Amino acid sequence: MDSNQGFSKPSEAQAGTGTGDTSQAPLVMQRDQPGAQQSDSEATFLSQTLSNRGVKISTFYYSNFQDYEAYQGDRYHTVLNSLGFLNLGISENRLCVDLMTERLCQNDMNYIEEPLLQYPDWRGHPFLRAEVAKFLSYYCGSPIRLNLRNVVLLNSCCAVFSALAMVLCDPEDAVLVPTPFHSGFLFSAQMYTQVELIPVHVGSEITNTNTQPFELMIGKLEQALLEAKTKNKKVKGLLLANPQNPLGEVNMKESLKEYLKFAKRNELHVIIDETYMLSVFDETIIFHSVLSLESLPDPNRTHVIWGSKDFGITGFRFGILYTHNDDVVSAMTPFGYLHSVSGITQYKLRRLLGDRDWINRVYLPINHSRLQEAYGYVIKRLHELEEQFGFKITFRSIGCGLYIWINLKRLLEPCTFEEELVLHRRFLDHKLILSRGKSYMFKEPGWFRLMFAEHSQRLREAMDRFGQAIEEQKQYWIQKMLEDEVTS
Amino acid sequence: MDSNQGFSKPSEAQAGTGTGDTSQAPLVMQRDQPGAQQSDSEATFLSQTLSNRGVKISTFYYSNFQDYEAYQGDRYHTVLNSLGFLNLGISENRLCVDLMTERLCQNDMNYIEEPLLQYPDWRGHPFLRAEVAKFLSYYCGSPIRLNLRNVVLLNSCCAVFSALAMVLCDPEDAVLVPTPFHSGFLFSAQMYTQVELIPVHVGSEITNTNTQPFELMIGKLEQALLEAKTKNKKVKGLLLANPQNPLGEVNMKESLKEYLKFAKRNELHVIIDETYMLSVFDETIIFHSVLSLESLPDPNRTHVIWGSKDFGITGFRFGILYTHNDDVVSAMTPFGYLHSVSGITQYKLRRLLGDRDWINRVYLPINHSRLQEAYGYVIKRLHELEEQFGFKITFRSIGCGLYIWINLKRLLEPCTFEEELVLHRRFLDHKLILSRGKSYMFKEPGWFRLMFAEHSQRLREAMDRFGQAIEEQKQYWIQKMLEDEVTS
Repeated sequence: MDSNQGFSKPSEAQAGTGTGDTSQAPLVMQRDQPGAQQSDSEATFLSQTLSNRGVKISTFYYSNFQDYEAYQGDRYHTVLNSLGFLNLGISENRLCVDLMTERLCQNDMNYIEEPLLQYPDWRGHPFLRAEVAKFLSYYCGSPIRLNLRNVVLLNSCCAVFSALAMVLCDPEDAVLVPTPFHSGFLFSAQMYTQVELIPVHVGSEITNTNTQPFELMIGKLEQALLEAKTKNKKVKGLLLANPQNPLGEVNMKESLKEYLKFAKRNELHVIIDETYMLSVFDETIIFHSVLSLESLPDPNRTHVIWGSKDFGITGFRFGILYTHNDDVVSAMTPFGYLHSVSGITQYKLRRLLGDRDWINRVYLPINHSRLQEAYGYVIKRLHELEEQFGFKITFRSIGCGLYIWINLKRLLEPCTFEEELVLHRRFLDHKLILSRGKSYMFKEPGWFRLMFAEHSQRLREAMDRFGQAIEEQKQYWIQKMLEDEVTS
Repeated sequence: MDSNQGFSKPSEAQAGTGTGDTSQAPLVMQRDQPGAQQSDSEATFLSQTLSNRGVKISTFYYSNFQDYEAYQGDRYHTVLNSLGFLNLGISENRLCVDLMTERLCQNDMNYIEEPLLQYPDWRGHPFLRAEVAKFLSYYCGSPIRLNLRNVVLLNSCCAVFSALAMVLCDPEDAVLVPTPFHSGFLFSAQMYTQVELIPVHVGSEITNTNTQPFELMIGKLEQALLEAKTKNKKVKGLLLANPQNPLGEVNMKESLKEYLKFAKRNELHVIIDETYMLSVFDETIIFHSVLSLESLPDPNRTHVIWGSKDFGITGFRFGILYTHNDDVVSAMTPFGYLHSVSGITQYKLRRLLGDRDWINRVYLPINHSRLQEAYGYVIKRLHELEEQFGFKITFRSIGCGLYIWINLKRLLEPCTFEEELVLHRRFLDHKLILSRGKSYMFKEPGWFRLMFAEHSQRLREAMDRFGQAIEEQKQYWIQKMLEDEVTS
């Protein structure tokens, strides 16, 4: 199967010839697709209809979310659509839908009262913020009781990050981001903020500046900051994720403190995304929230984000900010006007987060056990592929998060982002979506994030497809190696 | 009661001395309050913490939403807080909470399935967009069957307007807006879009250019467009509301067509807000949706917004765009990433909008009858006040929407926006929130929008407070007149 042909099917559907619902007519998207030509009349019409920024945002979206759009229009279903896309590219926990459905259908959830139907407090209903403060106090292991006044609820972690970037940075200001870093915030930064994210590359191999694979050393941060200043960039913050995404690792407590001290020394805000804090499924690993620290080096410049991922309810569309900085809370408030969450959803969320007995006795043990099992299954399949095809597949992930960061650069010839894209498209040919390293701003081609928190039957099918794609890629790789030998 | 003292209470609570939850410490807000001084150290800290745009958005918000913030922290309750704020300033229908609660608690509403818990289609779940298309086809009286492909769902009408302005306009582009116009969109335009809203003043009095009070004549639009062009402004669109807000009137079909033709002649987009289309409670009034027209002059540049107001569920946080323009749908899609609605809310909304039997036989007749009654009650109270105080109170509203646009300029001496603010604060002293003309970009001081869709007991209490404030204002007015006589 040719990789370019393989992806033509969803593109056709999107271009309006399909019968499915995703058949929007995205002229904008076509422009961005490789090989697509835009006629003069189309361009004129587009420029008359859409603003420049409208075209820019669309183009960025459709070049980064092609797979997602295709998936929405052609999702795998065991019976109804067994040839549809399996999506191990987006990160959402699908392992506990049964538990969550059961909990959400209980009587205490279906409650309506007048304030839930009316305009809310733009920071989130006080009853929910109080519950969130209690929840974070407990699960982050905070030495002090956290306060509802420091909580802001918006309709996704990305919306929280976007609003925070608006409030802390002016256009053209910059934020340091160790990469690979998850693509959600990278896209969010594009939409409104005009904030530049400066990647601080953390490499996979040991070098002079990289004493451990994927370890963010303070020296790298210092160097990146210095380089940015040399270029007259105004660096306002440092963006971190702990547990890391896509690396699937947690920060050591000492490292965390070092990052916070570095930020304080340089008067940088630290935005720390702790989205997967309850998805540490290996019991030997200890997660340290910044909110657990006895004292924060710079509490007014430390801002924590948490959201829906730990409960597998990305469809709830909520994200939470916790910050000790009252001015930031105050300045974030107006953003609730355009990014708020429905009252009935806020109510359910309160019931959910407040049911500590269920979370501790039912949800977390079962969820962690299922994550462990799915993770183990994928590792086993990767080892089988190594044996089958006789090449080493290295990967990161030590037992937290929903994903494994896999090194497939041995299958690229040459090892370039063009060839990474070829392999990515080969997965798509097999109706399997992974996310590729380039979308994480990673500088080494050949890495992919594989999300494993999927039902066993679908995960099995996905790994079968993965194996088929790898087999095909191996043949392609051999062919290229032979051609190289002939030409050299 | 002194008007400045009167408003100091909520401000104090907001500044952090209160015990309530609204006690954020908004230095930003203090800056904006009349008479508040900002110390150098405060200013330095703020400028170090927040971005310039963060300060700007906050300042705009807290100067326009002071009343709302006060209300959220000190809401009236018959038993628990009978001295709390009554809010006839924001527009939300509180008359049918009983009906809505009953409907939302029925069994068909509390349903969970996997896709509702997961990442959605950013345009809105297809099942809901299909229902919206059917709903609009029927209630807008569309001659063709509307298509789900032309529907975009975001998390409020304001978010829809904001995204639309992003997609159709570049920064500094302009949109014509007949004023008075409701403040929601005006605030939305401030947050992200940087689009200039050019007011086209529609006056209350008959003049050479105003042959009818509050009538938007094409000549005015032509003149405003010409003036804007003379100033080298790029005018991209025309923003309309039908039914009008705050005027409480509907557009005649012929006028509507004229506006659309004017827009087509000048290659302007028309964004038309039909939010109150089902809140026309006087049966003799006929509402014409643009979607009911046999043919639109420029379908690719005509975009309709509808939302939660007709059902009194502003807390659902949803807004809908219907546009025939596929490119606009396509370009709006990425905005769902930061403005989407939770799956469970989308499901309930689908059940609600699809229950035509309940809407037609139960909800609309009862809602319209209650609106009519509340409207009639307020009119009666206004007439009683006229008799009591011996001055004429004129107002607009012919039987649609949730509000009356009231002329109180007879009580201002002199008739300025400063004196309008004095009267506004006098209402606040009496713990009554109305919204004043200036926030609708209206050029004549002395007009207020009074929202009457409130429970009878609260409406009675609110009108008592209104009367007390008017009485006090009358005394103040007499005093000022006497002083004027002495000094002249």
